[in-house]
Amino acid sequence: MPKTINTALIGLGNVGRNFLYILETKGERIADQYGLDFRLTCVADSSGVAVQPAGFDPAELRRWKESGGRVSGLDGYLPGRTPAEAVADAPVDLLLEASPVNLQTGEPGLGAVRAALSRGAAAVLANKAPLVLAFAELHALAAANHAPLAYSATVCGALPVINIGRRDLIAADITYLAGIFNSTSNFILGEMASGRPYSEVLAEAQRRGLAETDPSLDVEGWDTANKLVIIANSFLGIHATLADVEVRGMSGVTTADLQAALADGSTIKLLAQAEQMAGGYHLSVGPKPIARHSFLGQCDSWEMGIEIKSDLYGIMYHKIWEREPLPTAAAMLRDAVNMLG
Amino acid sequence: MPKTINTALIGLGNVGRNFLYILETKGERIADQYGLDFRLTCVADSSGVAVQPAGFDPAELRRWKESGGRVSGLDGYLPGRTPAEAVADAPVDLLLEASPVNLQTGEPGLGAVRAALSRGAAAVLANKAPLVLAFAELHALAAANHAPLAYSATVCGALPVINIGRRDLIAADITYLAGIFNSTSNFILGEMASGRPYSEVLAEAQRRGLAETDPSLDVEGWDTANKLVIIANSFLGIHATLADVEVRGMSGVTTADLQAALADGSTIKLLAQAEQMAGGYHLSVGPKPIARHSFLGQCDSWEMGIEIKSDLYGIMYHKIWEREPLPTAAAMLRDAVNMLG
Repeated sequence: MPKTINTALIGLGNVGRNFLYILETKGERIADQYGLDFRLTCVADSSGVAVQPAGFDPAELRRWKESGGRVSGLDGYLPGRTPAEAVADAPVDLLLEASPVNLQTGEPGLGAVRAALSRGAAAVLANKAPLVLAFAELHALAAANHAPLAYSATVCGALPVINIGRRDLIAADITYLAGIFNSTSNFILGEMASGRPYSEVLAEAQRRGLAETDPSLDVEGWDTANKLVIIANSFLGIHATLADVEVRGMSGVTTADLQAALADGSTIKLLAQAEQMAGGYHLSVGPKPIARHSFLGQCDSWEMGIEIKSDLYGIMYHKIWEREPLPTAAAMLRDAVNMLG
Repeated sequence: MPKTINTALIGLGNVGRNFLYILETKGERIADQYGLDFRLTCVADSSGVAVQPAGFDPAELRRWKESGGRVSGLDGYLPGRTPAEAVADAPVDLLLEASPVNLQTGEPGLGAVRAALSRGAAAVLANKAPLVLAFAELHALAAANHAPLAYSATVCGALPVINIGRRDLIAADITYLAGIFNSTSNFILGEMASGRPYSEVLAEAQRRGLAETDPSLDVEGWDTANKLVIIANSFLGIHATLADVEVRGMSGVTTADLQAALADGSTIKLLAQAEQMAGGYHLSVGPKPIARHSFLGQCDSWEMGIEIKSDLYGIMYHKIWEREPLPTAAAMLRDAVNMLG
């Protein structure tokens, strides 16, 4: 018999709905292979939160959302309650946090994560904001309550950058890392180089559900900087915040710049870099020309990637191609299974 | 206080000696950061096995080996005992198996791994042979004795291919994977393309300590096939053996072939492939022309890499550059820390 995991899913946007799709299509395999049955007891979107101890049906809920329904219209809707309040009270062993990035307050995600960890429930985040704003606090809360906490979906979609950094680079001294962490801006730069106008390309990214709810996070470099901050705290061994990252966006880059770079054997990428220096790392995000045939120079279109140089593990290069939010939703599943299976 | 892990290190060749170097230089950090103190109670090379319950000093042992000393000359040498016998009796919480690949019998590695798992000790393998010959048996033995078993060092050195496959592709249906798994043959093909003679290039690989003890394993494709078999059993969900892999080596490839491919925008690589088909996978190893600017076509010199296409996780690409055995030794450390830390 699979173990039932009472699950709160906060956020029913592109990532949340794809998670529902995975439960719908892979639920049986997850039960057979990993011994887990994720029962959706609590769900939330921007209209509010609903609780059903017997569980919402993932397929029905997905169709409801895709046909324009909102959580406030579901049986079990709790008027006036916040996701954090519902997560604190409902049957919840696991929180999946996939609400939009809010760098001002981190809400509603931050409150929901605090509520889950405080009661010893596991938390899996796809939303970066709670980590960017409260990395140390959330890790301390998790440790104090023996609550598992994972967030491999926050950096480069399903590319397991965080897992590689935390589990696979044991005892390493990382001397340099660089990456392309935002596929929307990477796609836009590539398409602009071939002459398509900025606004048309951004619209395509939004249509595919890959742009952030607020696309200025993508193109102004903040999404990339968020990911660099999460990496720095996760496996560079430093306590960094956004204020420690030198950030420039890609909005100043013109089609002429891009074409001139290509003519020169290079390409302009919105690059995140962490360079080791005395006492820590220099963290930066900005458009940089790099060799066209280098690993990151070949990280094109809907790809994100990272290279990591360390004293023990040579130089590692990892990239992923993903054009929909499905892999990011799958990364939440992976974290949940690895923590609870 | 760090937890003492009584450790048997079987094999003091290039990988084993680099493991000693890591203990020597990172021992304090491993104790501080991961709470583990690896005490080398049992060591073996081709001359025999020695046991010291108080522990061998890693630095002294490394210097002893590098100045031509053998285990048979150490205090604690047990004449006539096999590594398996010593691992069964000595204080051993963890076996690190780094002896040479022996595809006929798997020995002495296979016996040592059986001995460790049978007593409930953890086993970490860098040696592929025991897994290629007895994958299912060793996993059943590990499960029956609640003994942790890991082997991320067996495939592509320190590139965490096995870890990614087992932990990061949860619930995925892998439709295709391809890789370059043997850096010696990859280096040889690249250098031959630029006109260097085969024998000179092989000698360089041997000098660097990267060629297998028997280099025909590298160039005839068997090392690559071993890794493909380990991958297939680890995360393709099939029980494959070497007999299931169509294997061709690179010895038939000439400098003229390599140069003709380059002139044509392609490059010849010793490629491992797993293609999903009805009822399983078609597994093959052989020299194949691929596009020069593809991911694997750019996997050059001392690099190994893999691309993995699945239904949930998009397309992932991973490669590593490593020119010495240090990263492979570090991969053994990572497995040990992840299992015991």
